[in-house]
Amino acid sequence: MLEKRTPLLINHAITKIMDQPIEGRTEEISILECDQRYLGEEILATNDVPLFTRSGFDGYALRSMNTVDASSVQPIKLKIIEELGAGMVASKEIGPFETTRIMTGTMVPKGCDAIIMLEAVKEIVENGEKYIVIKQKVSKGDHISYQGEEAKKGDVILKKGTKINPGVMAVLATFGYNKVRVAAKPKIGIFATGSELLDVDKPLQNGKIRNSNSYMIASQVIRAGGEPIYLGKIPDNLETCIQAVESALKDVDMLITTGGVSVGDYDLMPVVYQQLKGQVLFNKVAMRPGSVTTVAILDGKFLFGLSGNPSACYVGFELFTRPVIRKILFCENAHLRSGVAQLTTDFPRANPLTRFVRGKLCFENGRLLVDPAGMDKSNVVMSLAHTDSLAVLPGRERGFKKGDEVQVLLLEDEG
Amino acid sequence: MLEKRTPLLINHAITKIMDQPIEGRTEEISILECDQRYLGEEILATNDVPLFTRSGFDGYALRSMNTVDASSVQPIKLKIIEELGAGMVASKEIGPFETTRIMTGTMVPKGCDAIIMLEAVKEIVENGEKYIVIKQKVSKGDHISYQGEEAKKGDVILKKGTKINPGVMAVLATFGYNKVRVAAKPKIGIFATGSELLDVDKPLQNGKIRNSNSYMIASQVIRAGGEPIYLGKIPDNLETCIQAVESALKDVDMLITTGGVSVGDYDLMPVVYQQLKGQVLFNKVAMRPGSVTTVAILDGKFLFGLSGNPSACYVGFELFTRPVIRKILFCENAHLRSGVAQLTTDFPRANPLTRFVRGKLCFENGRLLVDPAGMDKSNVVMSLAHTDSLAVLPGRERGFKKGDEVQVLLLEDEG
Repeated sequence: MLEKRTPLLINHAITKIMDQPIEGRTEEISILECDQRYLGEEILATNDVPLFTRSGFDGYALRSMNTVDASSVQPIKLKIIEELGAGMVASKEIGPFETTRIMTGTMVPKGCDAIIMLEAVKEIVENGEKYIVIKQKVSKGDHISYQGEEAKKGDVILKKGTKINPGVMAVLATFGYNKVRVAAKPKIGIFATGSELLDVDKPLQNGKIRNSNSYMIASQVIRAGGEPIYLGKIPDNLETCIQAVESALKDVDMLITTGGVSVGDYDLMPVVYQQLKGQVLFNKVAMRPGSVTTVAILDGKFLFGLSGNPSACYVGFELFTRPVIRKILFCENAHLRSGVAQLTTDFPRANPLTRFVRGKLCFENGRLLVDPAGMDKSNVVMSLAHTDSLAVLPGRERGFKKGDEVQVLLLEDEG
Repeated sequence: MLEKRTPLLINHAITKIMDQPIEGRTEEISILECDQRYLGEEILATNDVPLFTRSGFDGYALRSMNTVDASSVQPIKLKIIEELGAGMVASKEIGPFETTRIMTGTMVPKGCDAIIMLEAVKEIVENGEKYIVIKQKVSKGDHISYQGEEAKKGDVILKKGTKINPGVMAVLATFGYNKVRVAAKPKIGIFATGSELLDVDKPLQNGKIRNSNSYMIASQVIRAGGEPIYLGKIPDNLETCIQAVESALKDVDMLITTGGVSVGDYDLMPVVYQQLKGQVLFNKVAMRPGSVTTVAILDGKFLFGLSGNPSACYVGFELFTRPVIRKILFCENAHLRSGVAQLTTDFPRANPLTRFVRGKLCFENGRLLVDPAGMDKSNVVMSLAHTDSLAVLPGRERGFKKGDEVQVLLLEDEG
């Protein structure tokens, strides 16, 4: 059962995956529950913003032409004819040398074309009438927000696939989207394979390790925008294993297995794919780590066979599974955001394969640096905890030096 | 009731807040529920990692000294004495020119000091016995992960206050943390003030706007790591308002109000603070926007009086409320991560006050750029949707030019 595998180039592997016809679904939920989800439709302005011409500050609405000659030497006086609280609408149109006390956000009364701020005037009383004294020229339009200046009714304000963050929330509420159509979260089943795996609550024993990949992948699924479904350990027996995969596939939108994809006698998953007549897109990629990643399609659903090695598993998910999830969530750019960063350390060892090195980004004097943690074999799991990016070191015949610029993929980008 | 306010410098305001004695609580939850939470205790290695000396690849365990003379001209032959599956433990110690078939992660059998990868050997059968043929020297330690090389039992692996991400999950599972002690999420009540505010599901009417700040702030609370509690609109009547604040404070860890903090006749909150005998830390800050932010302490709990203006409200939360939340979550650095970025546009208008301009970060040739969206008065709410950072423009007598380097605060940093 030793199998000869032909490695695919990374970009070809990703293209093969992204070319699969797969579509997201949408659902309508309350605005109170939509935070961090992805928009399932375009958001249109349901009215002009501002809806009415309004004041940008607490102050007085006036006719700017009345203030043309105002100065500290020659102050002018305007009579207060009305005082408006927030949400109140003026009952009087102002005439020459009249003014209305107005609040931030209040509709500007008819006849006014500018606001002067509260702090800039003095209020006086003469013969039982209130006036303000102005010592400066006020320009037409000062502190006024005009109807429709932010958006016109029907404008597309937000694209489908936008992640809902605090600012998006403000937009949704402003336009009265009490219910929001969002992308349904894809349900992603997670199976661990390997008879060496112990449950997390079990004491260690020789030759065994605890199943950490399932928990790691579940967290990666959440970060990508999906809903992880723990399916536990897959049975070691081929027949039971096939049944477990078939049965799980009915309840999920895609399935991730970790482990069991290497070239070796005890590796189940390639056989499972074969027996279930899955279409294997690839079973080897020209990269490190994660070269044995296998991706197949069964009944129109993705099966991601990720490596059992923690960092290979991590990288395989981010490169191959994450973009599928983001595509299902309608994201305009499904792939990891990329930038250029300087390495903070040397990597003397050359490698013919492209390597994805887990790293931590930092900024120094406006430059992006990446502090890689994955080059020596130690601290594989520990360094994953501080990883927020992957540095891409292309395969070549010499190593890399501190200060070399490399591509970095940002893992915590919100897309 | 017009009040004279003395603006505090931004850093003084933040220091006043952070100097308050306020402590977070912890709770123990299942590893299955701890994603995205903050660690409430140090995580120690509960065993050596690796627990036992193990193989890094599928291959054969051997004695490196047996391969010293191996070459393609002079291949050497090792007898396979045992074949181990994942999780299996060797029953035999290997002798000279013997080898054991071994899987990735399997315990290295006694007597072996190196692994040769499966792909690097040829298996042959002679007289009914299996052998491998090796054409290269194998170095001592090759592809072996030694017991304890990643961590020794008792090592502090993760600090209290670390945010739980996929890599942290892997660490927790590896060390058997089936239950995880995390920081309890602070409960943060959100009141909107302003008679001009409509509920999100209500049709617009003249002089009114929909309450968008509550939804925006709730999302900011979630991003910071807290639990938002919508309390709706605060009553306009002073007496009822005081009762509402008092009663709400019993159920939450802190309270945010939006609006009602400007200098004006209709502004309730300063009066409420006064009547409830809250200790006002400050009621004006030398900054734009958000200068009228008021922060008070009542019964040992924070009251954040944020502006009703959306961008002032947004900035006020990030500068003043977020660090308190992160402190309660035990984060080592409670403040927003900061960097230096080049402006992508001019800001000709000078301002004596420090401005916080909402922006979107991008990378270009390894440099950090910030594309600011907040300088003209239009698109206030809409541009918040694309904001991932705040550019800090210090007060000065001239404006800023495209290419100028400014400090940026990263809003989506995980801390």
